[in-house]
Amino acid sequence: MQRRLRLGMVGGGQGAFIGAVHRLAARIDDCYELVAGALSADPDRAAASAAAARIDPLRSYADYHTMAQAEAEREDGIDVVAIVTPNHLHAPVATAFLEAGIHVICDKPLAISLQEGLELQRLARLHNKVFALTHTYSGYPMVRHAREMVTSGGLGDIRVIQVEYAQDWLSEPLELAGSKQAGWRADPQRAGPAGCLGDIGTHAYHLASYVSGMQPTRIAAELHTFVPGRQLDDHVQAMLRYANGARGMLWASQVAAGEENALKLRVYGTKAGLAFDQQNPNELLVTPLAGETRRITRGRAQSEAAAHATRVPPGHPEGYLEAFAQLYQDAALQILAVDAGLPLPPESSFLTTVEDGVRGMQFIDAVLRSHRNDSQWTALTS
Amino acid sequence: MQRRLRLGMVGGGQGAFIGAVHRLAARIDDCYELVAGALSADPDRAAASAAAARIDPLRSYADYHTMAQAEAEREDGIDVVAIVTPNHLHAPVATAFLEAGIHVICDKPLAISLQEGLELQRLARLHNKVFALTHTYSGYPMVRHAREMVTSGGLGDIRVIQVEYAQDWLSEPLELAGSKQAGWRADPQRAGPAGCLGDIGTHAYHLASYVSGMQPTRIAAELHTFVPGRQLDDHVQAMLRYANGARGMLWASQVAAGEENALKLRVYGTKAGLAFDQQNPNELLVTPLAGETRRITRGRAQSEAAAHATRVPPGHPEGYLEAFAQLYQDAALQILAVDAGLPLPPESSFLTTVEDGVRGMQFIDAVLRSHRNDSQWTALTS
Amino acid sequence: MQRRLRLGMVGGGQGAFIGAVHRLAARIDDCYELVAGALSADPDRAAASAAAARIDPLRSYADYHTMAQAEAEREDGIDVVAIVTPNHLHAPVATAFLEAGIHVICDKPLAISLQEGLELQRLARLHNKVFALTHTYSGYPMVRHAREMVTSGGLGDIRVIQVEYAQDWLSEPLELAGSKQAGWRADPQRAGPAGCLGDIGTHAYHLASYVSGMQPTRIAAELHTFVPGRQLDDHVQAMLRYANGARGMLWASQVAAGEENALKLRVYGTKAGLAFDQQNPNELLVTPLAGETRRITRGRAQSEAAAHATRVPPGHPEGYLEAFAQLYQDAALQILAVDAGLPLPPESSFLTTVEDGVRGMQFIDAVLRSHRNDSQWTALTS
Amino acid sequence: MQRRLRLGMVGGGQGAFIGAVHRLAARIDDCYELVAGALSADPDRAAASAAAARIDPLRSYADYHTMAQAEAEREDGIDVVAIVTPNHLHAPVATAFLEAGIHVICDKPLAISLQEGLELQRLARLHNKVFALTHTYSGYPMVRHAREMVTSGGLGDIRVIQVEYAQDWLSEPLELAGSKQAGWRADPQRAGPAGCLGDIGTHAYHLASYVSGMQPTRIAAELHTFVPGRQLDDHVQAMLRYANGARGMLWASQVAAGEENALKLRVYGTKAGLAFDQQNPNELLVTPLAGETRRITRGRAQSEAAAHATRVPPGHPEGYLEAFAQLYQDAALQILAVDAGLPLPPESSFLTTVEDGVRGMQFIDAVLRSHRNDSQWTALTS
Repeated sequence: MQRRLRLGMVGGGQGAFIGAVHRLAARIDDCYELVAGALSADPDRAAASAAAARIDPLRSYADYHTMAQAEAEREDGIDVVAIVTPNHLHAPVATAFLEAGIHVICDKPLAISLQEGLELQRLARLHNKVFALTHTYSGYPMVRHAREMVTSGGLGDIRVIQVEYAQDWLSEPLELAGSKQAGWRADPQRAGPAGCLGDIGTHAYHLASYVSGMQPTRIAAELHTFVPGRQLDDHVQAMLRYANGARGMLWASQVAAGEENALKLRVYGTKAGLAFDQQNPNELLVTPLAGETRRITRGRAQSEAAAHATRVPPGHPEGYLEAFAQLYQDAALQILAVDAGLPLPPESSFLTTVEDGVRGMQFIDAVLRSHRNDSQWTALTS
Repeated sequence: MQRRLRLGMVGGGQGAFIGAVHRLAARIDDCYELVAGALSADPDRAAASAAAARIDPLRSYADYHTMAQAEAEREDGIDVVAIVTPNHLHAPVATAFLEAGIHVICDKPLAISLQEGLELQRLARLHNKVFALTHTYSGYPMVRHAREMVTSGGLGDIRVIQVEYAQDWLSEPLELAGSKQAGWRADPQRAGPAGCLGDIGTHAYHLASYVSGMQPTRIAAELHTFVPGRQLDDHVQAMLRYANGARGMLWASQVAAGEENALKLRVYGTKAGLAFDQQNPNELLVTPLAGETRRITRGRAQSEAAAHATRVPPGHPEGYLEAFAQLYQDAALQILAVDAGLPLPPESSFLTTVEDGVRGMQFIDAVLRSHRNDSQWTALTS
Repeated sequence: MQRRLRLGMVGGGQGAFIGAVHRLAARIDDCYELVAGALSADPDRAAASAAAARIDPLRSYADYHTMAQAEAEREDGIDVVAIVTPNHLHAPVATAFLEAGIHVICDKPLAISLQEGLELQRLARLHNKVFALTHTYSGYPMVRHAREMVTSGGLGDIRVIQVEYAQDWLSEPLELAGSKQAGWRADPQRAGPAGCLGDIGTHAYHLASYVSGMQPTRIAAELHTFVPGRQLDDHVQAMLRYANGARGMLWASQVAAGEENALKLRVYGTKAGLAFDQQNPNELLVTPLAGETRRITRGRAQSEAAAHATRVPPGHPEGYLEAFAQLYQDAALQILAVDAGLPLPPESSFLTTVEDGVRGMQFIDAVLRSHRNDSQWTALTS
Repeated sequence: MQRRLRLGMVGGGQGAFIGAVHRLAARIDDCYELVAGALSADPDRAAASAAAARIDPLRSYADYHTMAQAEAEREDGIDVVAIVTPNHLHAPVATAFLEAGIHVICDKPLAISLQEGLELQRLARLHNKVFALTHTYSGYPMVRHAREMVTSGGLGDIRVIQVEYAQDWLSEPLELAGSKQAGWRADPQRAGPAGCLGDIGTHAYHLASYVSGMQPTRIAAELHTFVPGRQLDDHVQAMLRYANGARGMLWASQVAAGEENALKLRVYGTKAGLAFDQQNPNELLVTPLAGETRRITRGRAQSEAAAHATRVPPGHPEGYLEAFAQLYQDAALQILAVDAGLPLPPESSFLTTVEDGVRGMQFIDAVLRSHRNDSQWTALTS
């Protein structure tokens, strides 16, 4: 049994959503212990949040600079930091820890500009650190099985990719009603220039790319803001063209009344099509051309990729938290390998990393440019 | 009990698909008897097809001109003609019968150009004839219930419309393999300039318009042909803008491996969202903002519109043929009223007519223009 | 094209449910014309109902005895009679027509006692007449496909059969509130000794037997009446034992709040299991032991049996009325063959007949006996 | 933040299934740290298993008697023991720890006889210890919501309860092929007299009782063994009668080809019916009499009970492991309260305890007796 990695956290204080999810995910597979944090910029909230997370008060820091420096100097300093702040801090915080020689697990989107993203990629490579990006949905066994199936040719040549991510929780101006989570997401200072686009559009884009193994070459997109007074987009629609001639569509909305967290992907090739729905993640539907739909279930899926990401037998549903835990487990495998000077273990190769984050920033960048040009077809710069 | 209407048919000879469907649909509610036809341009096939359809040989005609004239002159001539030919003949045949004073039931799309469509609309009005267009899916009770719900404000202000129609049956070049049905659909001479766009794209467009009660003002669209050698598009993707600020997407494909006849509509308003899937037509899903999904079933739906279009109790599924029959039933109600000089019965008001057909041609026209302009946002001309 | 068979009907006057369904079903495949009837015991209702059904007043009879005699004497007399009366009349009416040399299509259950049923079987054989019993659900293509699959060994040796039929429409005492349909069903004089058991329990039993090809040898059953004042059972539960060691359960209820018409069958063998839900009849789910569920759809199912019973392509849902029409179509095929002195066409072999009806009466009989003996395991007499 | 409880474990060494699940579940909500164990009767396996679970070798014990005594004497001894052995050891192990003054979390079924179960209940009360029984499925938020709904009268008077639990993993004689998990389950010495009945039948029975709040008064049941050579039942079917006149059926099978872990419950009352499927646990379907099905989702369900047992927002699926974790969380709440001499916190009242276990043993006992008497209706003794 490997030792537990020592984990620090920046952001995620009381009232935040994703910080608690990261902490829970880190516990599930018993690869981490949370030992340090700068959980809030507010000193009182930071201290209270640290206590609630059972962090030693001496390792609860007032700011991330101090934390990076102090932890780097400790014999028992953290191995890795989880960054769960609003978007605008991802890059500065990650920079501080990478430069302190500490591995990074960062929430998405990677940054608030493509330039920031590229710089983080450069730094991670320079310092030879693991940089895991928590595109949660890539932790699902059936998503990984789908990826294996597509990339091994099981669908034939890919023709069509349809991806969508619909929610309804921002249908009304929650950001004006004091919602902490809506507040920063609708604030360009903290969220960056992309609202729904950055928050869930990137998840949709990533899922499509992750499973298909393809990035589009051009995008024609339109952003829209439905809620009066909102400063950022709450709706994204886009058409995609791929190098091999494939076509696709992407839709993300946070004002789709009745939808909870409806991330859905369909990929069609010359031989078969597949469908995945995040809200029902224990199954993958695959239908051959003119054939019968096969329901492939987690636990019965015949692939190493799916088996590696599953904990309990078929019919015992796993969910969002296990998907998240999978990213933590895979990051741990990579961190242990890197620190030991060993090659990355093959079973961890499904981890999403800074490279995925850069592609997400390219997507955001292209959508913003296309939107400004009345939805003109726009090349993704690399 | 009203008398059965005397029905004639043009097209739909042996080997055709939709002609047999029309005949079956006309029988279901016992409003018609088929008494005349010009079922094929080939005389032998015409005669054999007429015999199979129990049409008196004396009323099996070699061409539709002769038929229109002869039937118009008979005391017991047909009341209405069903036009089930390839697209290019819709306008000339309909013109012949309208001018002979005979009502028309015509398969979709209305014509092969917007100009043709407008002319048919003019003629139908001029001669005061019923002109039913068989957008089958508007015959479903739950589609009509959805329309009532939307237009009565049950969803609030409409924000988003997502419609799609995916099939896989043209994934390979069937038109080169002798398929009669694929043959004319892939032939610009008979199908007109729109392939998948005209065949199923118009169905998707119509369903979205029919339920929402809204036409888009602008469209950004791209056609694509995946199958090598195919002369017309087999894939359509489009983004839509509506006058009230709503946004939408439309996808139609005949190369989506594994899909059978997947016409699906979702409409989201400020208060609720709804979802309809043609392949499961006995239910409509409606979810209020942040609320519980309600499954409304045919037979339990509380609306006149749905009740009018339903035959058997809840839990006894009705399907495609009953939806088709509903159009025939509604057309019969209108024909009997018009012929009696009475106002159209309100319960028949859900029938799709030449006006719907013209809007479909405007859609096709705008998509073709946008496509030629690299998916530029393009206004629908009226 | 074969001639249309001349059809008469007994029962099914205005206000009845199943009579109208029979008439519609008879029209769908264009094999029949309705030309005579004794639609009601009430002369005024009989006449009005005949007019509404476009029956010549001269062939609208006041009673079925007169009708059987008169029609037998006509040159153009009916070929076949459809019996859609309450249960207690099935046997006397069928007897009258069989003895007059007229084929019979009879609604289920066959009769109100096993003895009556055996006598009908004897008569049908004696007079060499087709006796179709309208177990509607056996008209579904996917039910027939399931039967082919089971009887050809596709599931291995059958181990478990679970069948259920749940409705809620008799949850309250409708029979006391003037409901015509509830009225006779809850009246032992007209329904016979079995309430829910005869009305839908027999459908469930038939479906299980039809698909599995097996009859149980013993039944342990309990009837129950939930609605105060009701004279017959509204709930049935039973356990089944089969000769090969298989086990099963049967549940039928008309007081299951929220259920519409939920007839569901599951059959498990040593190699695979299957599931069919009447409310979603265009698909059949088959799952191999430890394998992936395959969704087999109407139109894509690879069997003669399913192909014979399907009208439109996959994805164009067929429903209850088409299933019913299939029984009429198959009966027509058999009647034409018998009248021509030809062997029964193989494609009609899936028709349910008087033999199925006798087995249904054996089932009812055994359940009633087991119930009276405190659910003792009770043999089905043959 | 409360301190983490110190947890010990008996059973669950390498190769076992449920032990690892218990450990993972105990981590999820961060209420426990695993500090001691007697993980295997085999000393080498015990040591290796303890090391893998990060248990201090000094607190890895060779047998549970030693462990109970040693831990009871330590200042920092365990607060609670998790018992994850085969069934025959549940009672002796629980007895040892209860007598040592240590709380118990025990896997189901409670014991191998009703008498054992009653004795454990007496001991737990005598020593005033928490005795949690891990009926996993009672940890699901939607199960708890269902229970609240039923017991608060939302369904009206209960009429019908249908519960089933179908698996296929014992369709072949795995116990003869060296499967550790199948081995003890099919061995009467370790599993007790009930095979499928004890393993999953009790889960089904518990779920029905938990949600309905009712125990049947009489059972008519039959066990069956399909797999040749198997020593215990692999199939259970039963009919149930309740004191209020309600009826029910219970089916459990481990030879239902194609089924993974299909635990399903339906409860019907005079006002509405509900349906829950363990394999899709984030939703509960509720349908009023003659009304529309409402899909109530985890996270949107309006009850304290559901809210208490949910971690992430609607649309972010939780699963089996979170349900399991909920039992650990609730047990922790009770243990902390008992140890502090405080009343049990109301939010922990949904925990399943030794009393539920006794009722499970009454069920097993009655089924065994009914089976021996040819399925005679048999009273549950209390």
